[in-house]
Amino acid sequence: MEISPRRTGRPYDHSSDDRILAVTLDLLAERDYERVTLDEVAARTGKAKTTLYRRWPTKEDLVLAAVRAAGRPPEAERLPDLGSVRADLLAVLDSPWLGGPDRRLAIFAGLSSATRGSERLAEVVRSEVTEPYVEVYRRLLLRAVDRGEIAARLVASVPVLAEVIPAMSTHHLAAGRGPVRRDFFVSLVDDVVLAALQVR
Amino acid sequence: MEISPRRTGRPYDHSSDDRILAVTLDLLAERDYERVTLDEVAARTGKAKTTLYRRWPTKEDLVLAAVRAAGRPPEAERLPDLGSVRADLLAVLDSPWLGGPDRRLAIFAGLSSATRGSERLAEVVRSEVTEPYVEVYRRLLLRAVDRGEIAARLVASVPVLAEVIPAMSTHHLAAGRGPVRRDFFVSLVDDVVLAALQVR
Repeated sequence: MEISPRRTGRPYDHSSDDRILAVTLDLLAERDYERVTLDEVAARTGKAKTTLYRRWPTKEDLVLAAVRAAGRPPEAERLPDLGSVRADLLAVLDSPWLGGPDRRLAIFAGLSSATRGSERLAEVVRSEVTEPYVEVYRRLLLRAVDRGEIAARLVASVPVLAEVIPAMSTHHLAAGRGPVRRDFFVSLVDDVVLAALQVR
Repeated sequence: MEISPRRTGRPYDHSSDDRILAVTLDLLAERDYERVTLDEVAARTGKAKTTLYRRWPTKEDLVLAAVRAAGRPPEAERLPDLGSVRADLLAVLDSPWLGGPDRRLAIFAGLSSATRGSERLAEVVRSEVTEPYVEVYRRLLLRAVDRGEIAARLVASVPVLAEVIPAMSTHHLAAGRGPVRRDFFVSLVDDVVLAALQVR
């Protein structure tokens, strides 16, 4: 039996995966998906390109792995609880997840450009990012109804309002306006979601 | 001088363009972009495929032409004026444009699937459909502020709220929930836009 050249190589060193996937997210925070290259990931991590290609045959595979490694927003596991629905919604914005709001919103902008060229990436961003955020907002608003901060008669509006922040963020990114900024997010919270729910 | 074979053909008959582009929109109303074929357009119009390919070399070209031929929403030229901002917003929904709400919302669903595979289509849908609708909503809401139907102190919320209906429609379509339905649109008008602007 012949041993193929590939199988004689050293086993892949998984310990540097975290670093490679973090650098991939860094690049997505800096530029559109089209301008992210495995060359640049190799240069920044000091890895050989062949090593990267062996593990992630395409850029799409690498970015998919980076998104999956990032996981879901931690607020989906543990809702913020700061005593008011407004503070809770802003806590989602100010979450330290993925390095805090600046890096995270820049990564989402890069990912948005990626989803335009890849149905697989669009699907994983939808299931790992967009849908969990909708669920976080839905639960925060329903909890505020339970606590009497939002009038019970408005409970039927909660599902549609829980989608407004993710939908408007996607719309903003698709229009090529660059990363979502803090003031845009705060305006969505105050002028749309809380205004519609009559929270002062 | 040789005459090339192409130039000896009969001149292209432009009179059937309207029919071909309307059938293209019909197909987009029935199915995802991926499942729209020039074969089917040829079959439904009685045209030879070679005739279609001569004028629109790719499916993307044909769909781009169909979107451009449809033009912008007529409400962008002439705002509805029915005496209340709610009636005006619902008049945009119930517009006869592109065959009325059922066909039009189905076409938009087909176009949404098309924009995922083509940056050119995404750009033309953005400039010919999404942005004109944002502008229509913005103007309707500002007129309601002028008329005193919306409190003047809420005027700063108008730009962001003008984007909610198009953004939520795109979000709905991207999530694969099928064409936007009338009740979803009405909920956006009542539970989000007018609720945030405190219009009863």
